[in-house]
Amino acid sequence: MVAVTEKGIHIVNNGHVTSPQGFSAGGMHAGFRKTKLDFGWIHSDTPATAAGVYTLNAFQAAPLKVTKESIEKENLIQTVVVNSGVANSCTGKQGIQDALETQALAAEKMGVAVDHVAVSSTGLIGVPLPMEKIHTGIEAMDDSNHASPDNFENAILTTDTVTKHIAVEVEIDGKTITIGGAAKGSGMIDPNMATMLSFITTDAAVDHDSLQKALSDTTNKSFNMITIDGDSSTNDTVLVLANGQQNNKVLNESHPQWASFLQAFQYVCEGLAKQIARDGEGATKLIEVNVGSAPSDNVASQVAKAVISSNLVKAAVYGTDPNWGRIVTAVGYSEQPIDPDKVSVSLGDIAVVKEGLPVYFDETYAKQYLENETVELNVDLGNGSHVSTAWGCDLTYDYVKINASYRT
Amino acid sequence: MVAVTEKGIHIVNNGHVTSPQGFSAGGMHAGFRKTKLDFGWIHSDTPATAAGVYTLNAFQAAPLKVTKESIEKENLIQTVVVNSGVANSCTGKQGIQDALETQALAAEKMGVAVDHVAVSSTGLIGVPLPMEKIHTGIEAMDDSNHASPDNFENAILTTDTVTKHIAVEVEIDGKTITIGGAAKGSGMIDPNMATMLSFITTDAAVDHDSLQKALSDTTNKSFNMITIDGDSSTNDTVLVLANGQQNNKVLNESHPQWASFLQAFQYVCEGLAKQIARDGEGATKLIEVNVGSAPSDNVASQVAKAVISSNLVKAAVYGTDPNWGRIVTAVGYSEQPIDPDKVSVSLGDIAVVKEGLPVYFDETYAKQYLENETVELNVDLGNGSHVSTAWGCDLTYDYVKINASYRT
Repeated sequence: MVAVTEKGIHIVNNGHVTSPQGFSAGGMHAGFRKTKLDFGWIHSDTPATAAGVYTLNAFQAAPLKVTKESIEKENLIQTVVVNSGVANSCTGKQGIQDALETQALAAEKMGVAVDHVAVSSTGLIGVPLPMEKIHTGIEAMDDSNHASPDNFENAILTTDTVTKHIAVEVEIDGKTITIGGAAKGSGMIDPNMATMLSFITTDAAVDHDSLQKALSDTTNKSFNMITIDGDSSTNDTVLVLANGQQNNKVLNESHPQWASFLQAFQYVCEGLAKQIARDGEGATKLIEVNVGSAPSDNVASQVAKAVISSNLVKAAVYGTDPNWGRIVTAVGYSEQPIDPDKVSVSLGDIAVVKEGLPVYFDETYAKQYLENETVELNVDLGNGSHVSTAWGCDLTYDYVKINASYRT
Repeated sequence: MVAVTEKGIHIVNNGHVTSPQGFSAGGMHAGFRKTKLDFGWIHSDTPATAAGVYTLNAFQAAPLKVTKESIEKENLIQTVVVNSGVANSCTGKQGIQDALETQALAAEKMGVAVDHVAVSSTGLIGVPLPMEKIHTGIEAMDDSNHASPDNFENAILTTDTVTKHIAVEVEIDGKTITIGGAAKGSGMIDPNMATMLSFITTDAAVDHDSLQKALSDTTNKSFNMITIDGDSSTNDTVLVLANGQQNNKVLNESHPQWASFLQAFQYVCEGLAKQIARDGEGATKLIEVNVGSAPSDNVASQVAKAVISSNLVKAAVYGTDPNWGRIVTAVGYSEQPIDPDKVSVSLGDIAVVKEGLPVYFDETYAKQYLENETVELNVDLGNGSHVSTAWGCDLTYDYVKINASYRT
């Protein structure tokens, strides 16, 4: 079943990373965590053109270094293996060796080139990767009992409460191209990437450099615009694999339908980003901050990030408190060129500030609005035509509870 | 009674803004809040040389604009009036008029020049200043029943749970100079000033430009190094008044004892900053982040701020979880030039990371350490000789509780 958005994007019902042609996925319990699935994989029937974006954290974890270097060699990935529970971060030379060994074992098991395997880890920092569990996981990669995208999507989760997945279809060269994606991320999420893993697959043929640029640009408008707690992790990764099984004319910026592909690709990234934000640790609501009438894209996105990152705004939304002063305050400390007398704010459709001054609004109605599962905070800077949207979640008791005792 | 620190600074027992010669203070309930004291004042017998630092928030509240412009005229302030409950922020032209009227009424009541009155407000944003309550407060300024520094310190509080005050003595030109201070601030506290009001008094004679420079420099190492929730408010102000009643030779950078004065002044600012951080909304602990061996002051302070601002670090300290991975992660995303292989971390004296790699430590002992009322997180960047310290508090259920329902 396929639903159609207002932009003409076809959304696959219950779409997954395996919705595009030629991809399979699986996951199982290898013992990194007590009981939950903790080892997963994606496999393409043929080597896929690959692009990646990685955390900007100075402490970049071992699997990121290994994956990045491998992709740089031929721009191809055929198999992705992911474990949760142990991040293989701050593990020094041993960590690099363990990531390389994981890659080599998976390559052997799946009969693919070593450099065509991407490795990814999420979980505790500073703990060596337990290689016997990696062995257990890799041993199971060809066992059809474990094959299912749902197993993969569950295996990559840590404190997440739900799996995140999506797929869309778009017509290119008269062929139906599918783009699928899965993600994890719940805590330690911040605009500049986060303990956030995202894997996107497509059966389109895409030029590598165009794919890399599309991923970087789109990440800035999706994954880099979500925040849960402002912390960027050492392991954040977004990988995209394009295996070309639809035999379309290779997509690049000069392809007449590049814009259609980009739009569908953006839809997948934004969809995953919103699913991550909505499932923030302890969250009860998705908050969407829309900034409009900004003098530049950068001003718009910096203001959006300042508002979505404010603990006070997040706590007010949790408490259904229409305390717009906190929104205005966050706009003001964004360190952007703001003219206070031109700023207007609304909660959904409820105007609360017009050109720097409070306007009368019905508090009861505003409180009711803030009880919605999705809350829109709209900021108009009155000084230009650029826009940006950021997503996050409310700050709740459960966020504190989860993070006061993650390890113990 | 006077205690002496290791640096030879004499700490006045139970010191206040009225400890220096020639200052009085008071406070009363004028009706801005339901029952607590909400209107306070400081008065100097003679006009005092004044310096100020103000919020960098683009939405600067009306009283800041009025106070700043007044100080700029003669660099003198004799009377300070402060209300809590209503911030007089986002109140447009009416807000400026109300602040000017408050100033004029206080000047008349106290028989001082209009431009020698500083006005300050803290509380809800977007609500007009209720002038009848300002009248009530000003009417009481000469009533000896309300005179007491404790009343002043209580009147300026909002969600604070304790008053913040300090005084120290230092010998200058053979005379005993006293520096006193009072502050408020509990939520919406961030490194770049915050809903933080701080008033410092001294009976020293100090050159205006030297005083302003000392205040700006010292603020960067004290008030600007505390964070509770990362939000900088529209009303943050630090004022210092030097009334010269000790008749010392006017202090400036070339005075032989300038360094002694600066050290005592820094002690007062740091003392107030730590009292604010310790009383953060919902806080159970003071966290002190010490960054050492940094290539510059700026790198040191940016790293210290990144760690002290991390919700994940703050929640881990609350939960006595020695999860050093979160500290390392915050160091890594500080956007500073960090060499991961040179970074060492300790919790108090307990080494947990040495040159980028985890070291064995006794988890039980570490958990016990984190139960202390003051917790030190030490980060050594292994790349220089610059240092910085930042202060904050743990993130608790009560922070969420307080901020989910501030207004309602």
